[in-house]
Amino acid sequence: MTSSKPTLPDVSVNGRSYRSPSQPVVVVCVDGCEPDYITQAIQAGVAPFMKKMLAAGNSGTSLVGDCVVPSFTNPNNLSIVTGAPPSVHGICGNYFLDTAQGKEVMMNDPAYLRAETLLAVFSKAGAKVAVVTAKDKLRTLLGHRMEGICFSAEKADQATRANGGIDDVLALVGKPVPSVYSADLSEFVFAAGVKLMETQRPDLMYLSTTDYVQHKCAPGTAGANDFYAMMDGYLAQLDALGATIALTADHGMSPKTDAAGNPRIVFLQEVLDERLGAGRGRVILPITDPYVVHHGALGSFATVYLEAGVDVPALVRALQATDGIEQVLTRDEAAERFELPPDRIGDLVVVSDHLAVIGTRASEHDLSGLTVPLRSHGGLSEQKVPLLFNRKLQGVDPKRRLRNFDIFDLALNHAIPAVHAAPAAT
Amino acid sequence: MTSSKPTLPDVSVNGRSYRSPSQPVVVVCVDGCEPDYITQAIQAGVAPFMKKMLAAGNSGTSLVGDCVVPSFTNPNNLSIVTGAPPSVHGICGNYFLDTAQGKEVMMNDPAYLRAETLLAVFSKAGAKVAVVTAKDKLRTLLGHRMEGICFSAEKADQATRANGGIDDVLALVGKPVPSVYSADLSEFVFAAGVKLMETQRPDLMYLSTTDYVQHKCAPGTAGANDFYAMMDGYLAQLDALGATIALTADHGMSPKTDAAGNPRIVFLQEVLDERLGAGRGRVILPITDPYVVHHGALGSFATVYLEAGVDVPALVRALQATDGIEQVLTRDEAAERFELPPDRIGDLVVVSDHLAVIGTRASEHDLSGLTVPLRSHGGLSEQKVPLLFNRKLQGVDPKRRLRNFDIFDLALNHAIPAVHAAPAAT
Repeated sequence: MTSSKPTLPDVSVNGRSYRSPSQPVVVVCVDGCEPDYITQAIQAGVAPFMKKMLAAGNSGTSLVGDCVVPSFTNPNNLSIVTGAPPSVHGICGNYFLDTAQGKEVMMNDPAYLRAETLLAVFSKAGAKVAVVTAKDKLRTLLGHRMEGICFSAEKADQATRANGGIDDVLALVGKPVPSVYSADLSEFVFAAGVKLMETQRPDLMYLSTTDYVQHKCAPGTAGANDFYAMMDGYLAQLDALGATIALTADHGMSPKTDAAGNPRIVFLQEVLDERLGAGRGRVILPITDPYVVHHGALGSFATVYLEAGVDVPALVRALQATDGIEQVLTRDEAAERFELPPDRIGDLVVVSDHLAVIGTRASEHDLSGLTVPLRSHGGLSEQKVPLLFNRKLQGVDPKRRLRNFDIFDLALNHAIPAVHAAPAAT
Repeated sequence: MTSSKPTLPDVSVNGRSYRSPSQPVVVVCVDGCEPDYITQAIQAGVAPFMKKMLAAGNSGTSLVGDCVVPSFTNPNNLSIVTGAPPSVHGICGNYFLDTAQGKEVMMNDPAYLRAETLLAVFSKAGAKVAVVTAKDKLRTLLGHRMEGICFSAEKADQATRANGGIDDVLALVGKPVPSVYSADLSEFVFAAGVKLMETQRPDLMYLSTTDYVQHKCAPGTAGANDFYAMMDGYLAQLDALGATIALTADHGMSPKTDAAGNPRIVFLQEVLDERLGAGRGRVILPITDPYVVHHGALGSFATVYLEAGVDVPALVRALQATDGIEQVLTRDEAAERFELPPDRIGDLVVVSDHLAVIGTRASEHDLSGLTVPLRSHGGLSEQKVPLLFNRKLQGVDPKRRLRNFDIFDLALNHAIPAVHAAPAAT
């Protein structure tokens, strides 16, 4: 029983204090989980566990919070596990222009991480920590300096005790390595989470899925409901195992098309080239990563690097008047408003509206993978995410602006542990 | 055949010129038609006419435009039929504080209308004009000074030649008077439109539905798809009758709940009373109308009247920091940005975020009619609406910011008429 374990120390990470878990705590980041996905799954009757957990008078809690803008996967996952915005941890996209190197690079090397993670700090304080991610791109960032179990569903067959703290993941989970473009990739994460809770009973577990389904399927449609029904079943198992469950999302998800289903794309590099002349402005799309089939590297957030001499106020006005653009901020404005590291975001930050995305040039985006109408994220319109718990919370100021990166604080410092003794590890 | 008719004169209304229709033109305002409703209906295979009309290389056109904020029914219907924003026509809500009378009143009396409608001007120029609305609240405003046919589905049994230019509507349509809270109310509008096109062949017809279904059902869910399948069938009939169809919406529609389906409501009068003391600020909800069962008078836009002496900048800052609030504008800022009549909008305009609505006090909203999770509108997040045509357009500047109230301009001045002779009236 957990009560026989020595008490773990509380920890302090990035200026915030966290109580050590008295019961296993599972934080789930459901990629692209616009709140309406869960609402509609409950309405459709396919999520009986969440329905019961969140029903009035029952033991759960439902809140809504703001994710980090850009509402992309890596900045938000890193915010969640550091409890801090990108201005602190440094990861403000999947991809950026490294001005020191003068070239565009992926930002998934821990060298770019400027803060410690809760996972690393808790693991070093003696907590048993486990992390399962869907895509491997997040594994090295999330697992940075962490002791314990950390592997991705995508490369579950390659996890070893040396590189991920665990052997034979496929045998444990009882599933083959899933396709990286599938709902199965996320199911593997949940299935692994349940098996780890059954066999290892980690004190702290972080599960992070992929938004393949959310990019394809609107809330309440069959494909989405199937996904949330699957998730509901695994959450019920984690709950039955006595875990405190705290669920949030890295970002929401919106349709990015006209009514006919055609993508609404602002090709921002073309706009800049037409206005400034070629080569005077350079558009960076921080959504860019190696897995672009389901969104064509099209999101609702871009940064722009400008040559000296460009009339910035005139350009800002012109971009703000462009159909599809919602906001244009200078580096300083964006760094302040969105809590971003100013050295990694360019001279301008451009955000498109809830039905539009930003591309570079038409010739640079392969839309052949878009077999259904484009759904994507990145902007302010995808900032609202759920904060769900299978516990009541106490001591949360009702006027506090909640963020998805408060999820560990809420789960560890505010959730009221279950009264009944939880089952021990098998 | 229409070619034997004397040519109608072009007209000028509210500073804009409109060519007279050479073929019957039907403008459809689909209440609450967030573009994704149509996208998802096409995806689900239940809207074969729209799918074909909008397919690449086919004869139709799909655009997206901005509606008027507040994204409510009456301001937008009046903008559509006047071709002008509320700063011109005066109707900026269903409901407002008439400062001359010192009391809150419905704004559906034509005495509040400050501009002529296209419908009235075309009818006086000799065009045969017909208007069918779902709810009766719009009938008197839309039909103001118009000659021709004008009736509501809600009171179809009460239409007479004297009050609506037509007798025996129920016999013509072959349907009973529908319930005001039903999809049937909108179906009656479409069915009447088809019958009028078959029997009267109006030069210009305006059909305006109700958003009962959209308040209840998310895009792509069964209830929504049933509605759009129904609509698709009637549009196909209007198309087969040779009409130019131009479809837009008064506003979009968003879920206004947390993931559990609980409404996210900012009770703004309570916020003001707590901050300022009772009675120093007065919240007006322009969504208020006699038909509140499906939304509980909860929308995403409010106006606030303040007593003299209130520290307005401090109040604006406090409201902007309130969870659920997206924007707070002073009267002048709101009047300029949203093109509203400054004498009818209060000292402040408050807009909530895409998942939140604004109420007055908890005690003043009856939520018992909300049998499904609240969906509503009124804010910036519901500003994007479809602009769909069964014709190609010509001469539209690709950089022009399109509005829903450009729909008559686009249909009359830019749509390329069908080449084949249309069937004559029976």
